[in-house]
Amino acid sequence: MALSEFELIDRFFKNAFPDAPEVSCGIGDDAALVSVPPGQELALTMDTLVAGIHFPASATPADIGYKALAVNLSDLAAMGAEPRWITLSLTLPQDPEHWLEGFMSGFSLLAEKYALSLIGGDLARGPLSITLQLHGFVPAGSALRRSGARPGDRIYVSGTLGDAGLALGMLDHRFIVDEQHHAALLQRLHRPQPRVELGLALRGLATSAIDISDGLQADLKHILEASHAGAALNPERVPVSGAMQQLPPEQAWNLALTAGDDYELCFTLPASVTDVAVKNLAEIIPLQCIGHVTAQGEIDWRRSDGTIYKPDGAGYHHF
Amino acid sequence: MALSEFELIDRFFKNAFPDAPEVSCGIGDDAALVSVPPGQELALTMDTLVAGIHFPASATPADIGYKALAVNLSDLAAMGAEPRWITLSLTLPQDPEHWLEGFMSGFSLLAEKYALSLIGGDLARGPLSITLQLHGFVPAGSALRRSGARPGDRIYVSGTLGDAGLALGMLDHRFIVDEQHHAALLQRLHRPQPRVELGLALRGLATSAIDISDGLQADLKHILEASHAGAALNPERVPVSGAMQQLPPEQAWNLALTAGDDYELCFTLPASVTDVAVKNLAEIIPLQCIGHVTAQGEIDWRRSDGTIYKPDGAGYHHF
Repeated sequence: MALSEFELIDRFFKNAFPDAPEVSCGIGDDAALVSVPPGQELALTMDTLVAGIHFPASATPADIGYKALAVNLSDLAAMGAEPRWITLSLTLPQDPEHWLEGFMSGFSLLAEKYALSLIGGDLARGPLSITLQLHGFVPAGSALRRSGARPGDRIYVSGTLGDAGLALGMLDHRFIVDEQHHAALLQRLHRPQPRVELGLALRGLATSAIDISDGLQADLKHILEASHAGAALNPERVPVSGAMQQLPPEQAWNLALTAGDDYELCFTLPASVTDVAVKNLAEIIPLQCIGHVTAQGEIDWRRSDGTIYKPDGAGYHHF
Repeated sequence: MALSEFELIDRFFKNAFPDAPEVSCGIGDDAALVSVPPGQELALTMDTLVAGIHFPASATPADIGYKALAVNLSDLAAMGAEPRWITLSLTLPQDPEHWLEGFMSGFSLLAEKYALSLIGGDLARGPLSITLQLHGFVPAGSALRRSGARPGDRIYVSGTLGDAGLALGMLDHRFIVDEQHHAALLQRLHRPQPRVELGLALRGLATSAIDISDGLQADLKHILEASHAGAALNPERVPVSGAMQQLPPEQAWNLALTAGDDYELCFTLPASVTDVAVKNLAEIIPLQCIGHVTAQGEIDWRRSDGTIYKPDGAGYHHF
């Protein structure tokens, strides 16, 4: 016989993760009860993943569980917040036990890594979809916002860009990639590493930050709009992986700037941040300065030889 | 041309409701930023509604918007929490403008009534479904829990039970109801009144509380299990409306006890709560004492003449 909602909750969710000390009531009442330590603000982010839209058919339930949490961790990283509690709502087709087992195995990897508490949510029958809300702490007034970039600030990105887009293109045969890179590319697509530690380290240093989910071009635009500024950038300085370097440069840049799904951070540092401080940050994850903030409200891409480059593609569209 | 995700957010969500003073960053960054006043705990509840499962075809977008918020307000009411902020994730089929307009008109009725802030969420293409998380304040240690019922406590329910179930039965032709009752029954189904004020007034008085979403029999069982107790109840004392009184008594009791979707509160009051205090509570919404908590772990239904009654039906099943 199929398990009831409450049996599924008992089996997969309740007591799956230890409650943090600030959780006075987790799963099992009408609402969860939590406290926020004095001097901390609460950062909240919510994302929904829908089957057939947000993950490719090749994604396993474990990949989906991992990524549902990774994308929310990435949002909190971009605010400089320390992740604490999760609420999770799943709508699932019939007999979801097997799927849930896989999902929770991927989910647990990140939940355990960051000692997160699963404090509530909902479980309903329906087309497969996942909504996750993540809650974190940030000292009052020290969150990284999109709105603080100022002309002259240097613009950085973490890691490399475009691998997830290349992986998707490989899966649907738009790109042919050397077999030696396949596993690493699929890892970037299905198991992105949220830059939580970098986000925490950027508190008090970065003037703005965002995570790269829709593509650098679209996400940097959010920073520039919120900051009423523009940017001068060099596409040759955009960091790309060995797999991406096999593509013609402009094709690689287009992927890196518009494909999205990378979950790296893009942030701005004022001139007052020393080279030593940047070097310390780069020990967490390699960083690349790709240009600087300008007063004009445009993004100006120029190669090292001074010629203008225009990215082809507009970022991931949700509608 | 269809509106983008960001255009839809600007049009329907951003600035739709004033941010409360404790919201330092609402819609428009990677995460929302909020503060919880000293001495308050945060109560969190999340619910998902899926088209074709959680609302009947006759429900308008405005009904759905209203009810999505009402069911979460009801959960916070059952904790004695004051509702404050909403996060909302919608997955919507193509060209959702018209649907969203209706949805937000119903949603706004309750959001404005309780001066709630919409601080974040997500918008994605997919099969119609709504996930809403509601956040509220409750003075630390004074939340109404399921686990505090003690033998001898009187068991109360607010309002009347079974109308939503009768309305559903009327819509799918299982029940024939006098036309004079149709409008009121549909109102109970589509526009339930969350008992927020009652929940707040029960702080410091009730030993336990729950909201009746799955049916009194199933929901009271949650209180009794959490409290390691039983109950002695009289079905004749279960409050039912004029429309319900047209049914044979046992049929009405079955609906009232097992159909669910009522969003009334069931709670327990210890002997120390005076008749005057109960009378004051009943000025918010009529209350009915239906029995008392016992030491045995069973629910014992007996008519006034002492004969045993067994409810037929087991409550709403989510899976």
